[in-house]
Parts: sequence; structure tokens; C-alpha cells
Amino acid sequence: MVNTNSNNKTLSLESLKTPTLLIDPEKCKWNIRQMKHRADMSGVIFRPHFKTHQSAQIGEWFRDEGVQNITVSSIGMASYFAGYRWDDITVAIPVNVREIDEINRLASAITLNILLESVESAAYIAANVVHELGYFIETDTGYHRTGVDPGNDILIREIIRACNRNPRLRFKGFLAHAGESYQSQSRQDILRIYRDGTSDLQDLFNHYKNDFPGIIISWGDTPTCSQVEKFENIHEIRPGNFVFYDVMQFFLGSCRIEDIAVVLACPVIAKYPSRKQLVIYGGAVHFSKDFIIRDGKMIFGLLANPVEHSWERPAKDTRITSLSQEHGVITSDDEGFLERVQTGDILLVYPIHSCLVADINRQFYMLNGDRIECMERNRRY
Amino acid sequence: MVNTNSNNKTLSLESLKTPTLLIDPEKCKWNIRQMKHRADMSGVIFRPHFKTHQSAQIGEWFRDEGVQNITVSSIGMASYFAGYRWDDITVAIPVNVREIDEINRLASAITLNILLESVESAAYIAANVVHELGYFIETDTGYHRTGVDPGNDILIREIIRACNRNPRLRFKGFLAHAGESYQSQSRQDILRIYRDGTSDLQDLFNHYKNDFPGIIISWGDTPTCSQVEKFENIHEIRPGNFVFYDVMQFFLGSCRIEDIAVVLACPVIAKYPSRKQLVIYGGAVHFSKDFIIRDGKMIFGLLANPVEHSWERPAKDTRITSLSQEHGVITSDDEGFLERVQTGDILLVYPIHSCLVADINRQFYMLNGDRIECMERNRRY
Repeated sequence: MVNTNSNNKTLSLESLKTPTLLIDPEKCKWNIRQMKHRADMSGVIFRPHFKTHQSAQIGEWFRDEGVQNITVSSIGMASYFAGYRWDDITVAIPVNVREIDEINRLASAITLNILLESVESAAYIAANVVHELGYFIETDTGYHRTGVDPGNDILIREIIRACNRNPRLRFKGFLAHAGESYQSQSRQDILRIYRDGTSDLQDLFNHYKNDFPGIIISWGDTPTCSQVEKFENIHEIRPGNFVFYDVMQFFLGSCRIEDIAVVLACPVIAKYPSRKQLVIYGGAVHFSKDFIIRDGKMIFGLLANPVEHSWERPAKDTRITSLSQEHGVITSDDEGFLERVQTGDILLVYPIHSCLVADINRQFYMLNGDRIECMERNRRY
Repeated sequence: MVNTNSNNKTLSLESLKTPTLLIDPEKCKWNIRQMKHRADMSGVIFRPHFKTHQSAQIGEWFRDEGVQNITVSSIGMASYFAGYRWDDITVAIPVNVREIDEINRLASAITLNILLESVESAAYIAANVVHELGYFIETDTGYHRTGVDPGNDILIREIIRACNRNPRLRFKGFLAHAGESYQSQSRQDILRIYRDGTSDLQDLFNHYKNDFPGIIISWGDTPTCSQVEKFENIHEIRPGNFVFYDVMQFFLGSCRIEDIAVVLACPVIAKYPSRKQLVIYGGAVHFSKDFIIRDGKMIFGLLANPVEHSWERPAKDTRITSLSQEHGVITSDDEGFLERVQTGDILLVYPIHSCLVADINRQFYMLNGDRIECMERNRRY
């Protein structure tokens, strides 16, 4: 009765007992090479965001492609990667002044860049930093989460002035994260977000470049970085999600379905053919609660079809339609599938948002059964 | 500049640097005592669900009130608590047959109960269990996630027949989780869910009690267990969330706001008074993405007002209105608050759903700065 829905020999689904995050290294490496190639073709710096995988081992796959500079989303993550010979790191969240001691410790060891977007934080950092530290001024080009308005020249000059009180602070340039691209309805939307956002940054750059030679424009987010033909007006890209991609990125047009490099392998624990459903052991604590809405309905994951050594296409009309803490309800219009699947089978599910899924599943496995080294959850320096 | 919005001496907000989950033991103990008292007044067994806290130390607060039997949501969690002298545990999710070895190992050491709701799983368990093991038949009284239809006498008899092939399997009774109570619009809804669901279970009980003396009815979920005046027609309650409660339970009428025993303490990293917002370091990886909708708007957390030694009331008109991976956007209509708060301050935020928040923050702290012992995340036996 305990069968798997795979007939391949490498993927050791048979040995899995509980919900398990699986990574396909070949897909990851393909995604890394493609993005590196896109950066190289435009002559921009590739500073990938490592918050998506938080794994020293996956970091090495980037290093193999020549990546030297990285982005992270917390000081704890910067400290983790600094321990694995990453020595040029940007922490892409407005600086948390409470971590000044850890910032000083890290800045003494590596090239560390922080984000500033208020005079208050700039003044605090200038008064307390004792090692050389780079800073970007975070700029809000339309996401309206954090960052200075690119038209607010007074504020920008005040931030720089506050920083100038400490000669150890180096102004590195302007940085933006176009998170609004995740809400795009079309490729045109995504290209427009890139064009308008980078145009604002370019204006800033032109305004400040003579006073501050060497400053750059740094640009983030996977949807624009995956879809723009050529990176113009910017000097650096910081996408992160692309290493795994996910269902959301697929529907945004950022990737092919076969590029999604992560699935959750989950045991079937109950079947209800009469209501076209089955239930997996795999819930909100494994998938997070991110969802997309298609045809008015919430989707929390799409079933993947296993193929030899990996997975490729989504199974027809089969998706997670609700999640509770440990249970996932799968609804399918494929009657053959519902008949075939047995309690105890392992199903592979593409996640909606791979960053959150990877963050909450701190044990990744490869298809050969090997575990991938990751940062511990709730790590504090 | 680094101040806190608290003037009390015990709560060591000053020392916090990153998002931190805080527990008020007095509130927890009050909630435990209240629910134990409710169970005692009705003469039902109190078998609290420990998935909410997953903490051996908090488990002891239950033991201090005389609790002996517990509920968990995974075999890994059962194994963790068995290591802390809990020797009567129900795993309240349809059995995952892939964990048969661990089930046998645990069943050899403690009184273990599993849930069955299909003939396939019952037959597999009957064929493979080598130690005494209890089972409940999970019954679907309206949630439509898992469980047999209470009117499906044929299926119920087939499950029992499959189990009877192994004399080590003990039929313990019928169990239901009324998860639909989380969608209730009123107290009347919640009371109706209890009345209708337990009435179905009582019919089953009356039908089977002569053939299976000693079987019981086990009933779950915090909303009904918190709001029903007297537990009639059932023998056991299994609420879990009540130990912490949360914003969702407050709006469901399950608790007073002052009963919420958990907050996330988060540093302020950015301020935008002109758009009535500020941003905290504290995002989806700390809060999960559960939300409630009030007046058509999504709310991901409510600001709490610190008081001496604890927190009590929500701050006026101040809530998390969006979350990304590490950032939370707080929107407030309280201009005084927006003026008062400084970058670097620590804010206390009531979570929407404490079970998920506790699951992803595996480091709990008490108000005196002591850490609370918890199960590791992704623990596998």
C-alpha cells in the first residue's frame, strides 16, 4: 500500500516519511547561470539575494558561476554567510539600529553595506560606527514600503550630510526594490515598472554622480530581472527568488514551469473521491499561507508530475485549495488521478512562494537523498 | 534615540535586538486554569492540544493544574512530549502510515491514540502494529476537511472490522474537530456548530456504546470550547489555541483582549507620518501570513499597549496592514502615536493566529528575559 507516484530510481521518495522540501540542483544551477548570463550581457553587477535559500551549500553554486557579491535580509544572515567566505554583503532592509554592535563586528571583517532612508538612522549610525561601512540610500520607486521619495532632494542631502560626520561611512549609491512587480497583471506592467523606476534612479544618479564619483544604482526583484531584455540605466541587480522560482513567478511570466527547482514531498493521509479531494500531511507550517487567486479561487500549491530524476509539469487541474496547520486539502478535476492515488503515496507539490517555504523548512534534501546545509531558523549571529 | 515604548522594569525590551516572541506566563496560566475549570464543571476530560505551544516548559504549567492527557498534531511532537513524561497522547491527524515504525516505537512506551478514517489506513495499521494502540474514528461533523460522514455506518463498521483483525488495536471512540467554528460570524453560529456537531456524535455514541463499552466522544477547537456554557453530550475536549489566544480568537468572542498571552516585540526601522505608516523589522517569517478582514481590509496584527510587567489593551486604530518577508507595515490613525514613536523603538504586536506564530518562532522569551524550552523546528523523532 505504501507506494510513490514516481517510478524513477534516483529520487528516493520511498524513504520519505514526513513533509520534505526537495531541491533539484540542476534546475537551481540552470536558473543561476541564466540570471548570471543576463547580468553579464548587460554588463551589470550580479549581487543575488540569498534570503531565498539561506544555504551556504547553494551559495557555492553561485560562487561556481563567478558570483562574489551578495544580498541578504538580516544581520544574522550576513553573519552566517560571512562565515562561509562571503566578504561583500549588502543587507537590504532599512538598518535596525539596535544591531549596531553586530554591524560593527561584521564591518570589521567584511565589506558590509547597509540601507539608510531616514536622517534619524543615519545620525545614529554615523555616531556609532567604528569600522568602514558602506551605505545605500533606499529609494521608493513605487512599492511604497520603505525608502525615500526620489524627488525629495532635501531629505537625501540631509541623510548624506548626517553620514558625512563619520569618515568611515561610504556612500555607495541608490538602491530600490520594485516589490510592486509581484502585483503585476502583465509583462507590459513589469516592463513599465522597470522603465519608470530605473528612470527615477537614473535622474538621481545624474544629479549626484559628480559630487560622489563611484556611486551606483542597485535594482532588485525577480519579476523585472527575469523579464527585462537588457538592463539599462542601472549598475547592479539583486534578484533572489529566481534560484528556485515558484508558482507565483510562473504566473507572473518570470519562468517556465520546468524551471521551478523546489517542491514539497507530502504523504497522502486521506481520500474523498466523491468531493474530488484528498488530504496530504503538509500544511501551513510547511507551505506558509501565501496563495494566488485564479478564476476567483485561492490556490496554495500546484501538484507536480514526477519524471525521471526530477519533476517537470504540473499535474492537470490539481491544486491545494486550503491549508490548516498540518493538513493540506488537494482538489482535482482529474478523476483518473484521484482513483490512482493511494493513502501513503508521496505527492510532489510546487509551492506558491518559494522564499517563505524555504524559510520555514530548514531541512532541504536533494534528489539523491543528501541533505543541503542551511542556516538554522531563528539564528541570532 | 533607542528607546522603548514601555516604562516598566521587568519587561526587558531594552535588550531586544531582533523580532522576539514574548510570552506572559501569568496570562497563559490563567487561560489554562479557566479552561481546566470549564472542563471540570462539565465533568469532561481535558486533553489540551499542545501543537499551539510545542513547549515542554509550558506543558508543565498544564501538569500543575492536573492535566495528564494531551493532544498533538504529529508523531514527532508526540515523541518530543513523551520524552517529558507525557504518557497518554492522541495524535489528532489521520494516521500517516509511513510513520509506522515510529508509531510502534512510541506505542511500546506510552498510551498512544491515533485517528483512523479510512479502511485502507485501518487495514495497514492492523497489519503492522505490534504494540497496544488506541484509535479514534475521526468524524466529520461539518468542517469537511477529514473524517467519516457520521451517517456512513457502513464505512465505520468496515474500519472497526479491519482493526478487529489485530487485538492490540483498541477502539477509543469518535473524535471531531469543528474547524468551521473559525469562520463563524457570531456566538450563535459557534453554539449551533457545537450543538449540531455533538448531536451527530451522540447519535453515533448511542449506536455503538453497547458493542464497545468504554468508548467516548472527543471534541476539539478553541472557539466552541471557550464559548459553550456547559459541555453536554461529550466526554473530552481538546482545545489548543486558548493557551495563548490571539486576535482572531478575540474577534470570534473566545477571549478578552487581555487574555492574549503572546506578542511579537519588533524594532521600528522606518517612519512615514505623511502616509500614517511606520515599518517594523518583523515580517511574514515572524508573523506567518494569516490575516483577518475588518471593514474590508486585511489585518496581519494589532499593536498592543505595554503596561507594567505585561501588555493589555490594543493601541488605538493601529494595525499591521501588510507583510513582506522581513518587513511589516503598520498603519495608524493615531497621530500622537506616530509622532511619539522613534526609529529603534520596540513595539509589541498581538498576532492574528498564535499557533502559526509560535510554530515559526522557536524561541520564546518570558518577561523576565528567560527563554522558554520548545521543540526544535523540523524535528523528526
